[in-house]
Amino acid sequence: MGYDTLTIGLDAGGTSTRAVLTTGTGECVGFGVGGRGNPTSSGVEIAGDGVMASIAAALAASSATLADVSVIATAMAGQRIGDEEGAWLMARLSAEGFAGRLVFESDLAATYFTGSAEPFGYAIVAGTGACAVRIEDGSIAATADGLGWLLGDRGSGYWIGHRVARAVVRELDHAGPRTALTPALLAHLGITAETARREGRLQVLDQVVEALYALRPIELAALAPLAFTAADAVAERILHRAGAHLADTLAAVLDGPGPVVLGGSVLCRDSPVRDAFVRRLGAAADGLDMRPVVDGAVGAGLLALRAAGVAVSPETLARLSGSLAGMR
Amino acid sequence: MGYDTLTIGLDAGGTSTRAVLTTGTGECVGFGVGGRGNPTSSGVEIAGDGVMASIAAALAASSATLADVSVIATAMAGQRIGDEEGAWLMARLSAEGFAGRLVFESDLAATYFTGSAEPFGYAIVAGTGACAVRIEDGSIAATADGLGWLLGDRGSGYWIGHRVARAVVRELDHAGPRTALTPALLAHLGITAETARREGRLQVLDQVVEALYALRPIELAALAPLAFTAADAVAERILHRAGAHLADTLAAVLDGPGPVVLGGSVLCRDSPVRDAFVRRLGAAADGLDMRPVVDGAVGAGLLALRAAGVAVSPETLARLSGSLAGMR
Repeated sequence: MGYDTLTIGLDAGGTSTRAVLTTGTGECVGFGVGGRGNPTSSGVEIAGDGVMASIAAALAASSATLADVSVIATAMAGQRIGDEEGAWLMARLSAEGFAGRLVFESDLAATYFTGSAEPFGYAIVAGTGACAVRIEDGSIAATADGLGWLLGDRGSGYWIGHRVARAVVRELDHAGPRTALTPALLAHLGITAETARREGRLQVLDQVVEALYALRPIELAALAPLAFTAADAVAERILHRAGAHLADTLAAVLDGPGPVVLGGSVLCRDSPVRDAFVRRLGAAADGLDMRPVVDGAVGAGLLALRAAGVAVSPETLARLSGSLAGMR
Repeated sequence: MGYDTLTIGLDAGGTSTRAVLTTGTGECVGFGVGGRGNPTSSGVEIAGDGVMASIAAALAASSATLADVSVIATAMAGQRIGDEEGAWLMARLSAEGFAGRLVFESDLAATYFTGSAEPFGYAIVAGTGACAVRIEDGSIAATADGLGWLLGDRGSGYWIGHRVARAVVRELDHAGPRTALTPALLAHLGITAETARREGRLQVLDQVVEALYALRPIELAALAPLAFTAADAVAERILHRAGAHLADTLAAVLDGPGPVVLGGSVLCRDSPVRDAFVRRLGAAADGLDMRPVVDGAVGAGLLALRAAGVAVSPETLARLSGSLAGMR
């Protein structure tokens, strides 16, 4: 032991999970990465494995055990999970000696608190999905989009990948312009470009359609990188429209100046998406302080501290960020 | 017996199957309806049951048995099925005494030959999906769209239903205009409109999103009728855009004047979709003879006759249409 208070923040995502072990002053004393941690997309068994692996790795760096931890805050996408729905995780934690309190938070809040400890501001995450929130008094006060691949998530990785797929099938169906996305997608799918036809249709089109329907729709998000590398007019147009959609999503929650924390792979780096995003915001971007972050690990740690009754400040955030950066 | 040649045409769809029993002159002597007949969407057991039920009903009106039938032509959506893939149906037919030849045809060809026996022309079907073909020398020479709900089918029933769903969630997310589609969809889903919020979001939006994701995506096609009855600006715009998309799909296969057979529930009746379809075609509609049909039963019968070596003519089509009309 040797610590006054120990908390764990979990940034539990669809592909990996990060655990941040901190003292009551926000000093990070352990960091670990595990597998998939979202029970909605992976099931409670796999998500439980991912979470527990990340916790074990974080604890391994310290002399502490789960019995020493007073609060665990789990940030994940989807509806906030109440005590009852969280039973799958509490059972796993209890079995390892955890006797503290388990709370669930939105992944958007974890993103926000990774880039800001101020009580008012905004976060927008554009990864596989896309969602924006306004934070007031440290809590989510407004939400825009985040409606999933079928109904929303405009400008997200899924949205971009879906447009890539549609641009290619439209070219092969002679209904859209020629694009560098087509050879890129064929190579990605391992399909050889041939000119044989059946009923006036390119057989390669049938092959592409069959290969794409064999995926779960959400897996089209994996095609988004093709738009970033193709760099022709069709790809640029997709990226510009994505940026404009993301700006509209953020604009829907704007209510004055403040920090804007940018999360997710689509917005967190310089790209035509980010350019179009800023351009579309126009004058609305005045007074907005854009802060890209790579994930929500720091924010999950901050949420855990807050749940433990610690008054978090910009200094707490700086201490947690700095000490975590030294551990990964 | 008492007949020289007997053939059966099957119009096998995703919701029902029609069987048309004809003599060699195109006289319909039996008609029957069965359940779902597409093995791709229903599985071979259910599709086999649907097909066999339709055949039994068609034969019941005559004194013939399956042993008297020389050719069965099955028209269905999706890739044409070769001998091997058709084994599921041949086994069922053989068990009932069928010793003739089984052939598979496109549902687009059945639609075409329901409205035309001419060797050159066009068919466009807009039901759950949307696809257009050009017929040359009696066979499909060009195809446009028909790429399925995720990648194409622009202007189809699915396309319209998906736009209905998106218009509603956008209104509830404060990202789109108010529309009569919203109360219509809430009523359809059995959700009560309430104004409670969580994290700044209407809880009714969460309910709608949850209800829609509980459906298989293709089931959104069932929401298309809401657009036809809502009759406000948002709904009209969806229907107009659907009609324009369908016109573009037909235009992609146009190559001179000819009959255009219109199949599927979206285009076969007068509506804002049809109005926009004709308007968008503009001068390209000159020389096109639009012929709406309710299903592909007559065409399936004609395809069966053709497969049996009968030279089909406009007179054959008229005889089959007239005699079938008297039986249903």
